[in-house]
Amino acid sequence: MAGKIQRYKHNLDVSYTLGATLTFEMLKERPDLINQVFISSETADEGGIHELLVSLKKHHIPVVLSDKAFHILSPKGNCYVIGEFKKEKPSLKEGNHIVLVNPSDAGNLGTILRTATGFGFSDIAIVSPAVDVYDPKVVRASMGALFHLRVEYFQTIEDYIRRFPDNARYAFMLRVPTPLPQVKRQTPYSLIFGNEATGLPENFADFCQSVIIRHTSRIDSLNLPMAAGIAMYEFTKADFNPAE
Amino acid sequence: MAGKIQRYKHNLDVSYTLGATLTFEMLKERPDLINQVFISSETADEGGIHELLVSLKKHHIPVVLSDKAFHILSPKGNCYVIGEFKKEKPSLKEGNHIVLVNPSDAGNLGTILRTATGFGFSDIAIVSPAVDVYDPKVVRASMGALFHLRVEYFQTIEDYIRRFPDNARYAFMLRVPTPLPQVKRQTPYSLIFGNEATGLPENFADFCQSVIIRHTSRIDSLNLPMAAGIAMYEFTKADFNPAE
Repeated sequence: MAGKIQRYKHNLDVSYTLGATLTFEMLKERPDLINQVFISSETADEGGIHELLVSLKKHHIPVVLSDKAFHILSPKGNCYVIGEFKKEKPSLKEGNHIVLVNPSDAGNLGTILRTATGFGFSDIAIVSPAVDVYDPKVVRASMGALFHLRVEYFQTIEDYIRRFPDNARYAFMLRVPTPLPQVKRQTPYSLIFGNEATGLPENFADFCQSVIIRHTSRIDSLNLPMAAGIAMYEFTKADFNPAE
Repeated sequence: MAGKIQRYKHNLDVSYTLGATLTFEMLKERPDLINQVFISSETADEGGIHELLVSLKKHHIPVVLSDKAFHILSPKGNCYVIGEFKKEKPSLKEGNHIVLVNPSDAGNLGTILRTATGFGFSDIAIVSPAVDVYDPKVVRASMGALFHLRVEYFQTIEDYIRRFPDNARYAFMLRVPTPLPQVKRQTPYSLIFGNEATGLPENFADFCQSVIIRHTSRIDSLNLPMAAGIAMYEFTKADFNPAE
């Protein structure tokens, strides 16, 4: 099917990296996923493109010069390279996890994936309904971090817990919480975050340790990626900064 | 000039809150700044609007029914209330500061303002060239936090230091840095962050303590609001979580 392209949909078995830098990230990390790469006629002779083309050829990845792909996938322009890649259905491994319950914003999910990669997490659980991690907006916002991660969807939090019953569960919510700096970290652990607008359901406190990041009442809440990033920092800082 | 409106420009002495929630935030915090409020004919009978109108009347703030304002300021729609407010030129007060050197992204700046408000900061220094804090995109991304803050622009970092020579300066950068968890906090302090793409110039290490938030090499860097939020959390957590 080389050369054919269609607008991204959830039920397609491929997705797209929009942009040269992002496509290069994927090529470095997961060349095995790439079906083909589209190049726009408008940048065929730009700088970094040559290096990309050489590397694609080395990996025997087809390159298609096609402006049509860009009209379909990036109608606003400002994008001259598009990679088409196979979606995977990875399974989470044992270890520390980030668990996102009903995340709804593509940019937020991408930022969380990037930050999680930065703090050494490899496994992300997402409880449906939720934004599609393969939406090109998520892939782009993750700046390629997606290609370092295993992301698995679960129908319910119970499904997740049945698979990983022994992880210590820390849920970021307001019901009888412990402040983050006072939490005693047990491993392996799961850091659990709710939807942007509604947070976690109250009953999560029944089967998780409830944790709060305290702040002034001048804002309603920290935004979701910020709360997740601060929690990941606090939970991993002993690993990144061993006592001298 | 009630009823007149023009596209936002840096040199105007007014700016705009796009949206009912944001306009309400401003009304609660800084009604004195508001010149007038535009209401679109499309939502004149929606729920929250009535409460807003009552409150505006109490404050003697003119309300203008005008679809033209929305064509000019929010051509993409999805916005039915616009507040016009006077810009201020506040001066920073002594105390702990966030210092942003050449921030360039409106959404990032808004997120940082919101997070800073959450962690109890009231004073933000911005070194030019930089995005305009009164750009309606920044105001919106701050979710009204701007109205809790003093934000002052400086031509150079030297101008800022001359005004606040006694603040301990912590610069987030890669040159000979101390890891964030090991930093000894002195007060008052300034947390200093560079541009999204280029970071801080190397010479900042000559007049600041250089600080790093360690992460894996799988990402180039944390994004700017994330780094700033984690730093604010670490510097303020003793205040929000006093020892029992």
